[in-house]
Amino acid sequence: MQMSNRISGFQCSPIRKLVPYARDAVKKGIHVIHLNIGQPDIKTPVEAIKAIQGYNDDIIAYGISEGELYLRRALLSYYKKYGLSLSEDDILITTGGSEAILFVLTTLCDPFDEFIIPEPFYTNVATFANMAMVTLRPVTSSSDDNFVLPSIADFEKKINKKTMGIMLCSPNNPTGHVYSTEELRGLLELCRKHDIFLVVDEVYREFCYDGKSFTSVLSFSDYQDRVICVDSFSKRFSMCGARIGAIVTRNKEVIDSVLKLSQARLCPPVVEQVAAAAALTAPDEYVENVRAEYERRRNVLISNMQRIPGVRCSLPKGAFYFVADLPVDDAERFALFMLRDFSYEGNTVMFAPAEDFYVSKGLGKSQARFAYVLNENELVMAAKCLEKGLKAYRRTVMGLSD
Amino acid sequence: MQMSNRISGFQCSPIRKLVPYARDAVKKGIHVIHLNIGQPDIKTPVEAIKAIQGYNDDIIAYGISEGELYLRRALLSYYKKYGLSLSEDDILITTGGSEAILFVLTTLCDPFDEFIIPEPFYTNVATFANMAMVTLRPVTSSSDDNFVLPSIADFEKKINKKTMGIMLCSPNNPTGHVYSTEELRGLLELCRKHDIFLVVDEVYREFCYDGKSFTSVLSFSDYQDRVICVDSFSKRFSMCGARIGAIVTRNKEVIDSVLKLSQARLCPPVVEQVAAAAALTAPDEYVENVRAEYERRRNVLISNMQRIPGVRCSLPKGAFYFVADLPVDDAERFALFMLRDFSYEGNTVMFAPAEDFYVSKGLGKSQARFAYVLNENELVMAAKCLEKGLKAYRRTVMGLSD
Repeated sequence: MQMSNRISGFQCSPIRKLVPYARDAVKKGIHVIHLNIGQPDIKTPVEAIKAIQGYNDDIIAYGISEGELYLRRALLSYYKKYGLSLSEDDILITTGGSEAILFVLTTLCDPFDEFIIPEPFYTNVATFANMAMVTLRPVTSSSDDNFVLPSIADFEKKINKKTMGIMLCSPNNPTGHVYSTEELRGLLELCRKHDIFLVVDEVYREFCYDGKSFTSVLSFSDYQDRVICVDSFSKRFSMCGARIGAIVTRNKEVIDSVLKLSQARLCPPVVEQVAAAAALTAPDEYVENVRAEYERRRNVLISNMQRIPGVRCSLPKGAFYFVADLPVDDAERFALFMLRDFSYEGNTVMFAPAEDFYVSKGLGKSQARFAYVLNENELVMAAKCLEKGLKAYRRTVMGLSD
Repeated sequence: MQMSNRISGFQCSPIRKLVPYARDAVKKGIHVIHLNIGQPDIKTPVEAIKAIQGYNDDIIAYGISEGELYLRRALLSYYKKYGLSLSEDDILITTGGSEAILFVLTTLCDPFDEFIIPEPFYTNVATFANMAMVTLRPVTSSSDDNFVLPSIADFEKKINKKTMGIMLCSPNNPTGHVYSTEELRGLLELCRKHDIFLVVDEVYREFCYDGKSFTSVLSFSDYQDRVICVDSFSKRFSMCGARIGAIVTRNKEVIDSVLKLSQARLCPPVVEQVAAAAALTAPDEYVENVRAEYERRRNVLISNMQRIPGVRCSLPKGAFYFVADLPVDDAERFALFMLRDFSYEGNTVMFAPAEDFYVSKGLGKSQARFAYVLNENELVMAAKCLEKGLKAYRRTVMGLSD
């Protein structure tokens, strides 16, 4: 019996397919520094942990399909801090930002409809697009100019009858680009001109550096009918395992339509919603301290990596990733080498080969995404491992003597 | 801007679209007896609640895509009690049985592929099929013969080039039918003959009555390559809000394929997995007591309803639902009447109109599903409300004097 063609066509997650090799390295006693996945070592707000511990219902009963009212109301206060006035009916709680993306694509698109997306992009979007039979139409940004957003004209070239919207992530995974007010307005105008949606994943909202301010797509009052924001508790509150996200939009038809999918899967997890609402009560300093910590970490990793011959890092303004060009023939082969054939003083580093962050074939082959989510000592060691590893790989695998 | 055709074609959940009317009734001070949704008033095992309260991680970090190993191992012991020998690699934890169904359909089927399903069936399967662009091909069972399974010949007539499998639920939602060993073997033989899958939702596994024993589809060693079981913690442990389910199969290709989807959405909720594993440590008496309680409740509701003129109830052997024929023109209109226009001593009852439990048009128009998930006093009052309500509806809406 065969599996479906669409599942055979799915990429095994590039970030996770190296996992067995990482496990083997650990078994050999090697310390693997995980810069491959956005799993921070930052503590979840203690308010969230205490709320879980204080859970006291007799029955873990079904919640509401759109998410518990207390949580949606708590989010209203949160968004208010960013000058965003919403109503609880503008918010649907989802099982992570992941489910939000799948629901949005399924709701807006019929099979073979298209969504434009700047690449490199968060690779799992491709799987959700595949599940929904949606074609991702890429607009390519380049490390040559720090992954700045391609021009509006470049976006417009990709629009056709089947285009349902444009999907962004800001601050961006994997490039760290933060979309400016002007960039967003330009895209919104384009969307209005062609009557399509703008969907923006803002899960890294607070993580902007070098004094850069963040503009939410939800703040453009003239365009709200075509705006959908995807959000999550995972990154800002370091609670990736809770799986609590949201779709936020003032377009009532979108809400009503997504609700049909929400109702079918009944409700988001209820205990995690308790934790999420409690996380929102953490003092403002929590997120500010985390932001400052990531800024420091970014500086440490980038400065250490920029010293390595042949490595070029973009300078990310937000999120907690960057994409680096590496002096290798094949970043995935190099990633495997680092896990299976290399160690330095008992350490090695794991990162995400960037080829699968692109739709366009052949791009990103020598690029990798690095998540600066660990403490500074780890990052310094990671850079050392990378430097030594690159030398060894170029010599033994590529046959080059530097 | 328009929504996708497929979302416009989705049914709003029949069970939930009456919810606003129920809320209005409550606002008017009416006590609504909820027999419309499988949300029991049974307490979750205290072990699960205590485990949540004992949660003490610093970081609610991503879990493993296939679900935490400790939970999959705990499930091995659980399945062992049913004589089922499995390995932890045969199990993928999902975000509820809901996600399991969506993942199975997406993995086995390309758009416009087909799955055969006896009707009436659990209505949300239709939404997941729609999301996956899978066509459900119904085989109709009838209240005339207590919803006994249609013949193998009836199933075989529906098989064509596009058929990927047959999907069952046993014990059945909504009919309460429990598939016998012979029925399952017959279907497995049919599946082998046509090289298709048999997918069985066994979430109500323990809830069998009148001494009826349960046969799991996982117990037929000759057919395991084409068998997929969908499971959940929701019903047996009254933890519907936790959203923890599973796909169980010895077909390694299915596991590896579904894993691609699991990886894309990262992991199931981690705190709820803690609760689920703890629920499995509840003494065997917990589930047996719950089973016996549902058996009593079934008897109470059915005996009270069978007394009502014009009402015909199937006698369910398992799960906690049955489908009743009601002496009305339109069960959905009647359901609305009961919420908006009726009360008896300050009470009314809510049930699920059965039309949407069928793929075939025009069936189930005068049928409703009742979930006997509440205590006996509530069920007795529910039957009284139904009796009075039917009289009032037939008189005032249908213009009949009984």
